Amino acid sequence: MELGMIGLGRMGGNMARRLLRGGHTVVGFDPDAGARKALADAGGGVADSLPALVAALPAPRAVWLMLPAGRITDDTVDALAGLLAPGDVIIDGGNSHYQDTLRHAQALAGQRIDYVDCGTSGGVWGLAEGYSLMIGGDAAVVARLRPLFATLAPAADAGWGHVGPVGSGHFVKMVHNGIEYGLMQAYAEGFSILQHKREFALDLHQVAQIWRQGSVVRSWLLDLTAEALGKNPTLDGIAPWVADSGEGRWTVAEAIDLDVPAPVIALSLMARLRSRDSASFADRLLAAMRNEFGGHAIKPE
Amino acid sequence: MELGMIGLGRMGGNMARRLLRGGHTVVGFDPDAGARKALADAGGGVADSLPALVAALPAPRAVWLMLPAGRITDDTVDALAGLLAPGDVIIDGGNSHYQDTLRHAQALAGQRIDYVDCGTSGGVWGLAEGYSLMIGGDAAVVARLRPLFATLAPAADAGWGHVGPVGSGHFVKMVHNGIEYGLMQAYAEGFSILQHKREFALDLHQVAQIWRQGSVVRSWLLDLTAEALGKNPTLDGIAPWVADSGEGRWTVAEAIDLDVPAPVIALSLMARLRSRDSASFADRLLAAMRNEFGGHAIKPE
Amino acid sequence: MELGMIGLGRMGGNMARRLLRGGHTVVGFDPDAGARKALADAGGGVADSLPALVAALPAPRAVWLMLPAGRITDDTVDALAGLLAPGDVIIDGGNSHYQDTLRHAQALAGQRIDYVDCGTSGGVWGLAEGYSLMIGGDAAVVARLRPLFATLAPAADAGWGHVGPVGSGHFVKMVHNGIEYGLMQAYAEGFSILQHKREFALDLHQVAQIWRQGSVVRSWLLDLTAEALGKNPTLDGIAPWVADSGEGRWTVAEAIDLDVPAPVIALSLMARLRSRDSASFADRLLAAMRNEFGGHAIKPE
Amino acid sequence: MELGMIGLGRMGGNMARRLLRGGHTVVGFDPDAGARKALADAGGGVADSLPALVAALPAPRAVWLMLPAGRITDDTVDALAGLLAPGDVIIDGGNSHYQDTLRHAQALAGQRIDYVDCGTSGGVWGLAEGYSLMIGGDAAVVARLRPLFATLAPAADAGWGHVGPVGSGHFVKMVHNGIEYGLMQAYAEGFSILQHKREFALDLHQVAQIWRQGSVVRSWLLDLTAEALGKNPTLDGIAPWVADSGEGRWTVAEAIDLDVPAPVIALSLMARLRSRDSASFADRLLAAMRNEFGGHAIKPE
Repeated sequence: MELGMIGLGRMGGNMARRLLRGGHTVVGFDPDAGARKALADAGGGVADSLPALVAALPAPRAVWLMLPAGRITDDTVDALAGLLAPGDVIIDGGNSHYQDTLRHAQALAGQRIDYVDCGTSGGVWGLAEGYSLMIGGDAAVVARLRPLFATLAPAADAGWGHVGPVGSGHFVKMVHNGIEYGLMQAYAEGFSILQHKREFALDLHQVAQIWRQGSVVRSWLLDLTAEALGKNPTLDGIAPWVADSGEGRWTVAEAIDLDVPAPVIALSLMARLRSRDSASFADRLLAAMRNEFGGHAIKPE
Repeated sequence: MELGMIGLGRMGGNMARRLLRGGHTVVGFDPDAGARKALADAGGGVADSLPALVAALPAPRAVWLMLPAGRITDDTVDALAGLLAPGDVIIDGGNSHYQDTLRHAQALAGQRIDYVDCGTSGGVWGLAEGYSLMIGGDAAVVARLRPLFATLAPAADAGWGHVGPVGSGHFVKMVHNGIEYGLMQAYAEGFSILQHKREFALDLHQVAQIWRQGSVVRSWLLDLTAEALGKNPTLDGIAPWVADSGEGRWTVAEAIDLDVPAPVIALSLMARLRSRDSASFADRLLAAMRNEFGGHAIKPE
Repeated sequence: MELGMIGLGRMGGNMARRLLRGGHTVVGFDPDAGARKALADAGGGVADSLPALVAALPAPRAVWLMLPAGRITDDTVDALAGLLAPGDVIIDGGNSHYQDTLRHAQALAGQRIDYVDCGTSGGVWGLAEGYSLMIGGDAAVVARLRPLFATLAPAADAGWGHVGPVGSGHFVKMVHNGIEYGLMQAYAEGFSILQHKREFALDLHQVAQIWRQGSVVRSWLLDLTAEALGKNPTLDGIAPWVADSGEGRWTVAEAIDLDVPAPVIALSLMARLRSRDSASFADRLLAAMRNEFGGHAIKPE
Repeated sequence: MELGMIGLGRMGGNMARRLLRGGHTVVGFDPDAGARKALADAGGGVADSLPALVAALPAPRAVWLMLPAGRITDDTVDALAGLLAPGDVIIDGGNSHYQDTLRHAQALAGQRIDYVDCGTSGGVWGLAEGYSLMIGGDAAVVARLRPLFATLAPAADAGWGHVGPVGSGHFVKMVHNGIEYGLMQAYAEGFSILQHKREFALDLHQVAQIWRQGSVVRSWLLDLTAEALGKNPTLDGIAPWVADSGEGRWTVAEAIDLDVPAPVIALSLMARLRSRDSASFADRLLAAMRNEFGGHAIKPE
């Protein structure tokens, strides 16, 4: 198929490459000239503006967005609305909030431009191993795009699927990331306990390697943990500072909205918030309270 | 009544003073000469050794321990076992684990020395306001000691009680402290949220003052919070480093042992543990994992 | 002062009564005739419609809303916008989300109708003891309304305050309720641990009574807990089903939005969600997983 | 090698079979005649008492325990102490607490009987896929037993390892199970959120299948989850009642003992405790408190 790819960063660039390897034609756009050149070097076409990208595609056009969620995605959808024609389709492969996706789909429906949301998992490993794709949208439109999904996924018939109406793909991906937070935190706590048991002098990399085969906790995240511990067993030089990219927050909000208790996902997010707050006001107030009622010494800053 | 007080620190010294003010006779022992002198200055008798203290008391003796839980209390009980006589009573007013208390009581029962555990709350304010006393032990023995409890408590008939058999006093006090952790953490989180809402520029001391009257969250801990925020509204100079003294840990362990979910108490304890671990291995591993799967940048130490 | 009170339920009716006792003139409206009659019986004026209420008040009018948050408050504010005149003021004393309040204030600013938000705490006890009031809005307008606040609060100069610009009153009240969830959960966990320690056969009402005097955990919520346990020591006939009224959810969402970890408040909310989900899908899936990997028996429904 | 296997239940029976298939000689004992017959049918030897089993093995003997942790393991070790000779070795492959293991090892050291602890993961799938083995003990002894581990593990050189001194194998396995609790809870929460999003009518089995390929959350537990959801998409007939087998509790206790925050593991355990407490006293007290302060209705039992 022919596809326009907007956003040629770590994710979009690799996905374009995987599509090219699969025999598709890809025209890419990114404001960064280096990203465009990288795609051209890999055999893709490039456009230096959105209108140019749209002009380079045959109708009905398929335009894939691989952009940061929020304003950039919003603005790009708005711009495309003025460039695309009835029967064209926009696929948002990024991490947009599913409610934004519903809003975009509704806004474009009046112009008969289709909208498909494709939650995409796999990270930097997706180029080689394929991406897990959770797709929401009209069944006929998704069916038409099947060759793209079959190439991007780990196998033509596995690792991707049409999960429901528009919005549901991003919803499922959001929850996927919430689960990911919980899994990561569970491993992090466990390895931290092992690391603190000084008397056993455990080799954490060895433990991770053992668990990778046959244990109940084997997983891809454990494979990566083993990789990280192999390279740097003591994690020297790595600050205890953990970013989050939004989907964890949305998952907690959605859980609460649906009356579903999700303590582990919520706590995993909050552990990350705490990691970035080295001067916690809450903890300072606790120390002040203890001083008030018990005369317990305060540790000076 | 006549009482021997062992341990004349912040708690024991004040309790001895409150008993003296209440007309009791107190002979105190502490290895620290300054603590002994302070009691003598307040009108108490002092002994410079355990044998001397025991010798100074009329039979049947009542000896109150106000010591750190664990080895010091254990050793003192052992030493007293060799000095006391049948009919004497030891009252452990400290924060001993209730199972240690059961062990002590059992060991002394053979010598017909009574053992009473008295969980004591009130902190540095107890001298003026009285102490809340949760008492375990034989009913007749507790009844005999009533004048002491009536003086130490905020009122002769309120703020103290015989809650059950030996061990139950320390058990109730342990849970009391677990609740305390949860209450403190709830306030700390709430004030931290207020503090982070920069656009409203809230005066946290004012908010605490408002809540002290008529609100659902009014409490003594809130009174102390208001006091702390009045003195130091931004908590300048106070490190986000929160100690814990054992009872919170025991409460969590006991909850689990009894199959009782206690998420808030457990999380309150863990927030304190995290406050003291500025180089969290778990958080460093999370950062390393994110780098592995997503190529996300690591923050250097 | 003269005041219109809209909403004469448990909160609004009692507040109107407290204002009447304080010498103010109150005209009330409620769609429920019984609620109107109760106010008339207490010496208040009543109106049987919003226009009638507005017509009954002298300019500049002060209209207090004591309504459920959300649509009812929104609709009432919209209706009042068509009835009030420049210089009039609406005080929202309910539990509106502070962002709704900001929206209302902005919408009315064009008409020069003032908007004040007054977070109100105190529950059914407020009539006798006074309400804790957290007030946001323009300083001059709040100053003009001072006689009302001074009467509603526990004391003329305590238990109420102007905490910041419009919206800040509801924000502070929202966080107040988040803290309340955490405090309640801490007590609930602690008493549950005590209750499960069968071997000590503790009298929970007695323990609560002891703690009310002199202990670190004394509070108004503990007073109420003692009251509840005194009436019904085993809580017979009370289902383990706990409602929540919105502010706890908003507090968690706001904490996350501000990057503030609030594990105890979040978990307190989630404990309530779990209390209402007796057929937890998550727990059923856990049981199914255990069966898959370990052949562990599933408990049939 | 020749091995005595004590305990021929789900785990021990399968492990004996896997050893037989690997060319080892196994003599088994179990009080249950059916379990002994199953082993005999599979080509193993059987003994109908511990002395008979010991007598059937050539010196130096290797005896593997695959028993429930606690009293049964304790009693069996005690009995073997009277039957074995210097140079023999006991391997405890069950889920004993590592401190019990240290105690056993120390008790047997005086008789020069070696003790090896082997944390074993893999569940009912281990027979076919091999077991993950975390081994603690003397290096020379572990080396001598290598042929057994190489057969039981998924591969001769992978999925097993000597992690440290005696006790460390059970310690690592304990933490493994703590992590397992966290992973399971993360998936359970995520699928529960998906299940509650009625408007998307998601097919949970399909979602699990998609995630198994290429996604960040792929894992063996996800494979099993997909299996369970494939068989029973709505989990009909499965009660929300989740057992726990001890290691999760020990992991939380150990984390606290080591000052390591482990919120996710702790909360995963507590979710299981809550699943089994359908008449939660804590939740009933919360409902009673809400009634006290706000007059909120109580739901009758």
